[in-house]
Amino acid sequence: MLNFESDYIEGAHPKILEKLVDTNYVQVSGYGVDQYSLSAKEKIKEAIQCPEAAITFLAGGTQANQIVIDSILDTYEGVVSAVSGHIATHEAGAIELCGHKVLTIPEHQGKMDPQELEAFLKNFYGDGNHEHMVFPGMVYITHPTEYGTLYTRDELMAISDICHSFNLPLYLDGARMGYGLMAYDTDVDLPLIAKCVDVFYIGGTKVGALIGEAVIFTKGNEPTHFITRVKQHGGLLAKGRLIGIQFDVLFTDDLYMKIAKHAIDLAMYLKEELRKKGYQLLLDSPTNQQFLILEDARMEELKKEVSFSFWEKYDENHTVIRLATSWATKKENVDRLLALL
Amino acid sequence: MLNFESDYIEGAHPKILEKLVDTNYVQVSGYGVDQYSLSAKEKIKEAIQCPEAAITFLAGGTQANQIVIDSILDTYEGVVSAVSGHIATHEAGAIELCGHKVLTIPEHQGKMDPQELEAFLKNFYGDGNHEHMVFPGMVYITHPTEYGTLYTRDELMAISDICHSFNLPLYLDGARMGYGLMAYDTDVDLPLIAKCVDVFYIGGTKVGALIGEAVIFTKGNEPTHFITRVKQHGGLLAKGRLIGIQFDVLFTDDLYMKIAKHAIDLAMYLKEELRKKGYQLLLDSPTNQQFLILEDARMEELKKEVSFSFWEKYDENHTVIRLATSWATKKENVDRLLALL
Amino acid sequence: MLNFESDYIEGAHPKILEKLVDTNYVQVSGYGVDQYSLSAKEKIKEAIQCPEAAITFLAGGTQANQIVIDSILDTYEGVVSAVSGHIATHEAGAIELCGHKVLTIPEHQGKMDPQELEAFLKNFYGDGNHEHMVFPGMVYITHPTEYGTLYTRDELMAISDICHSFNLPLYLDGARMGYGLMAYDTDVDLPLIAKCVDVFYIGGTKVGALIGEAVIFTKGNEPTHFITRVKQHGGLLAKGRLIGIQFDVLFTDDLYMKIAKHAIDLAMYLKEELRKKGYQLLLDSPTNQQFLILEDARMEELKKEVSFSFWEKYDENHTVIRLATSWATKKENVDRLLALL
Amino acid sequence: MLNFESDYIEGAHPKILEKLVDTNYVQVSGYGVDQYSLSAKEKIKEAIQCPEAAITFLAGGTQANQIVIDSILDTYEGVVSAVSGHIATHEAGAIELCGHKVLTIPEHQGKMDPQELEAFLKNFYGDGNHEHMVFPGMVYITHPTEYGTLYTRDELMAISDICHSFNLPLYLDGARMGYGLMAYDTDVDLPLIAKCVDVFYIGGTKVGALIGEAVIFTKGNEPTHFITRVKQHGGLLAKGRLIGIQFDVLFTDDLYMKIAKHAIDLAMYLKEELRKKGYQLLLDSPTNQQFLILEDARMEELKKEVSFSFWEKYDENHTVIRLATSWATKKENVDRLLALL
Repeated sequence: MLNFESDYIEGAHPKILEKLVDTNYVQVSGYGVDQYSLSAKEKIKEAIQCPEAAITFLAGGTQANQIVIDSILDTYEGVVSAVSGHIATHEAGAIELCGHKVLTIPEHQGKMDPQELEAFLKNFYGDGNHEHMVFPGMVYITHPTEYGTLYTRDELMAISDICHSFNLPLYLDGARMGYGLMAYDTDVDLPLIAKCVDVFYIGGTKVGALIGEAVIFTKGNEPTHFITRVKQHGGLLAKGRLIGIQFDVLFTDDLYMKIAKHAIDLAMYLKEELRKKGYQLLLDSPTNQQFLILEDARMEELKKEVSFSFWEKYDENHTVIRLATSWATKKENVDRLLALL
Repeated sequence: MLNFESDYIEGAHPKILEKLVDTNYVQVSGYGVDQYSLSAKEKIKEAIQCPEAAITFLAGGTQANQIVIDSILDTYEGVVSAVSGHIATHEAGAIELCGHKVLTIPEHQGKMDPQELEAFLKNFYGDGNHEHMVFPGMVYITHPTEYGTLYTRDELMAISDICHSFNLPLYLDGARMGYGLMAYDTDVDLPLIAKCVDVFYIGGTKVGALIGEAVIFTKGNEPTHFITRVKQHGGLLAKGRLIGIQFDVLFTDDLYMKIAKHAIDLAMYLKEELRKKGYQLLLDSPTNQQFLILEDARMEELKKEVSFSFWEKYDENHTVIRLATSWATKKENVDRLLALL
Repeated sequence: MLNFESDYIEGAHPKILEKLVDTNYVQVSGYGVDQYSLSAKEKIKEAIQCPEAAITFLAGGTQANQIVIDSILDTYEGVVSAVSGHIATHEAGAIELCGHKVLTIPEHQGKMDPQELEAFLKNFYGDGNHEHMVFPGMVYITHPTEYGTLYTRDELMAISDICHSFNLPLYLDGARMGYGLMAYDTDVDLPLIAKCVDVFYIGGTKVGALIGEAVIFTKGNEPTHFITRVKQHGGLLAKGRLIGIQFDVLFTDDLYMKIAKHAIDLAMYLKEELRKKGYQLLLDSPTNQQFLILEDARMEELKKEVSFSFWEKYDENHTVIRLATSWATKKENVDRLLALL
Repeated sequence: MLNFESDYIEGAHPKILEKLVDTNYVQVSGYGVDQYSLSAKEKIKEAIQCPEAAITFLAGGTQANQIVIDSILDTYEGVVSAVSGHIATHEAGAIELCGHKVLTIPEHQGKMDPQELEAFLKNFYGDGNHEHMVFPGMVYITHPTEYGTLYTRDELMAISDICHSFNLPLYLDGARMGYGLMAYDTDVDLPLIAKCVDVFYIGGTKVGALIGEAVIFTKGNEPTHFITRVKQHGGLLAKGRLIGIQFDVLFTDDLYMKIAKHAIDLAMYLKEELRKKGYQLLLDSPTNQQFLILEDARMEELKKEVSFSFWEKYDENHTVIRLATSWATKKENVDRLLALL
């Protein structure tokens, strides 16, 4: 059975497992103060060119979003997101659990439009009384988005400027960050992101790690007693080394970038070949998630030999399916998939 | 430097790492439905002799406590705990974050007294009006306790009976479960626990796993849509295999018990030798945590060569320190520690 | 200065004040068990023809919404509302404060469309996986809506049927209930509402009371220990008599209906005359709130002599203003307003 | 039937009702910006000699406590209270509902001891690691306490100094403030309270108002957008005039003090006479609540002719009952009560 269901169907990059084995008997203190975590943080700071960054390793993306957002917002504030944002749709109310509303604006292939963001904020502070409304307290974007799309440098800078003109921190959810950075035509890199946003996270789980995300406050703005907030939200790991070691490996010799590039190469190859074969894609995704529109009967056929994700109904007789590549995808399997289509 | 700081200073038991390596390229679906997680659940059900158990793997103890308690309690209910309970002291308000009060009763070397529990509940429903008070909605105990002590079979059954006579579920936090089960004189085993409580968790992180706890509802009482609740609290792991594989290994060939027994053997040896040398212990702990009372000057001396945990001040000139053994502790290191004392 | 700003610019109907004065020295127990509260509840039960109703008096509408919704929903559930619903827009996140998401569907002049509601619910339980999403746990409607519009009997019954076919309770926010009941062409009355919904509230504050709303569970479905939940949310009044007395007066000799009718008569007169004068209204509101579209310059002029509410910008040069009548509005003031227009 | 159950068994002082009637048809804007509320605030500022005070009127004490505490605390902080504090015992978890723990220290006749407070705070920041614990974020006291007792000027200043030395705001719950201020031997007055605390509330409901408490931030420290926070917690009244008018009356010509003095005179008379008759009181309360110890049989007898509050069991055969006087208590009724004892 071929499997293109997601980018987390395998374990971890072998270098990570190797390091876990090699360091297994080294005795270190818990809760993230071990030497591996410290080393990983230094390497990330260098990669993002942001020496004043404050970094914390967490276990998952929803957890990262919940903790970051609840730590930044005041009680009466909400977070602005595109209506397709992960926090608005697929985190089971994790933001609301902590008392905060997700204030949604339209999405365009998963992205928010800087002008629509500005209009939303201007309108909020405009003519009418807003004392009875949830105040926007920060802005949330994903990069790559839920649809695999990417912001351009100009868009990212525009959103950043708008946020800061309203004194709102900008938070970027980078669950699939690596695949965005290695996209062929992107003009967005880590230092730019670190400069534009106030906090972001670099996803590990979906880019070669067993588990783990690196939450990064970039402007000397880490919330007071952040470790206590993490503990309060159930996110503090006793064996902090587990994630520290993984990011230490991922940010050694550009491994994170190299394995993401592998996934991008295969995704672009897949996209190209699908187009040659005349298939229609939902949109032109530059990253490792490709959204293929299939006739329902065709899809049922394919299911027998390939695992993939149901994305959404396209019309009465067609369905959008998601095909994802990853650091571990083999070209021969892409070819076998193409042969079936 | 010798290190007896905690039972989570090393990585994982080598058999776990081996299995992670061996299964690394097997492609499985995410979120806990992989074959390793399923296999682990079957093995645990067998070990606890409870075929109707519903099991979920989570990343840490505070997370497990938060999710279980918030899932069981109604909005206006609180959880009854000994005043020394982990949820009452060292989880940074994780229970309150979800809207619930921890209702405390006295502790006796970390344990609650069944009669005091009954008196507390009787008093609540007694003469006065309790409509303006937080209702007790469940009872929480730890086994081993924060002081390393253990409930007896009779105590556990008494607490269980009292809870059920008030229609309150009983929840047992087993972060260090293995060390409790392997204590020399305990008459409490897994099937008894599964029978007495309504929900409990078996700790992995502190008993040989890299990460992970197994939450077990024992009475066909898993809350509706538990996976969604886990997701909402930020606890759902994309690569669920990570914890599934570990528990699958730990519950194969009694590994969990064997490695816990190793820690107990060394802890008992340490306790015996310390007593022979005339040292005073805070209490007679039957498990892997030993609480040694040291003169402050003596303690400062020891710090130069041994890592340990500060526990509490004993009196003006003395301090209680915690020495912990684990699955990975070497006898030669215990001997080196003893040589220093 | 004329004032048509809202329906809460005066104190209370004089009969209410009279009764407060008359009963002032009668000594009663607190927290809502006084004879006036009990009498008021009996009268309301009769008016809604629902002997099994359980009634609680609260101080305000947002408080009522927060307490009812938080009492009904399970932790992982949200409340479905039209995007214009009061809970979705103008309650400052009171629902999210208690951990729940407001799941929005489109609005049509303030109303939700039964077919769109059904489609939303069907879609949620449809093809895709919804385990990572907030579950719909109840449905919320307002009657009259925020735009002064009303559901028909058929619409209300359709929404009720849909809710119950999905096992979801239906909650109706009746902050301006009286004005809805007295609208000229409505076929919705209190017994129908009590039959269709699972819980609703009859607004007092905006219909002649100083303060107070009557929350009514109609199906033997009052949440356990509801008084404790009210207390927990800060809504329990020591002098419960204050609201009990007011509803007792309002539901004696149809006072509630009579004073609401007065407001409707004047609102319909105002609407008719405005139309005769050629003014454009935002929509055809059958209740006490009328939404007038004015040129901005004209509006600025009017402001000098009349208080009204800014509603929203209509286009670049026009604004929608709200003019509200109430139990206390005088016809001569409506005439003076018309003379100015 | 005589009634000494509480200080909220009657309606309101007649001057309040009179003013409600007189101003009934004056048209004012809602939500607390009316002229009566503004006038009341000016009078309170003068009474507390604190021109920079920011005042908000709320409906009840639990609501005031919940909103103030949730507005001041950061997510990971709790509020320190005596174990007998109202927020710790009789508010049904209103503080926890908003995510915050109540950190309790011992009580002495309802009061916290300044030295014990200091020791608690010193210990928190002392030797051990407190990163996994709830941080103290403010201190809460009641004056009069739940037992009717009062802090002295020295005690209040000591607590204030300790709080401020730890950068913690001090909050005083004055639900029965008037009765404290009019106690015979107190050296605490409103200006002293305003100087010592960072926020407090003056209770109206229990001192002659129908409803209402005045929340006062005294140090230019009102939380941002406080009105929005009030709305979010369900505490914003549309007809803000209702409470504004009442406090305007209460703070005109010292009415608040005069009516409280009446209650104190009768309470002291009652206490004196009870002592003369040889009755034992639980403690020497200087305020309007007196705690009488009665044989159970004697208490059952009394119940037939007098309403009072059950307070607590004293021993196997005795019960403590509470007898409360108020602004409305008649001396002849106190004499009738005494005649029965």
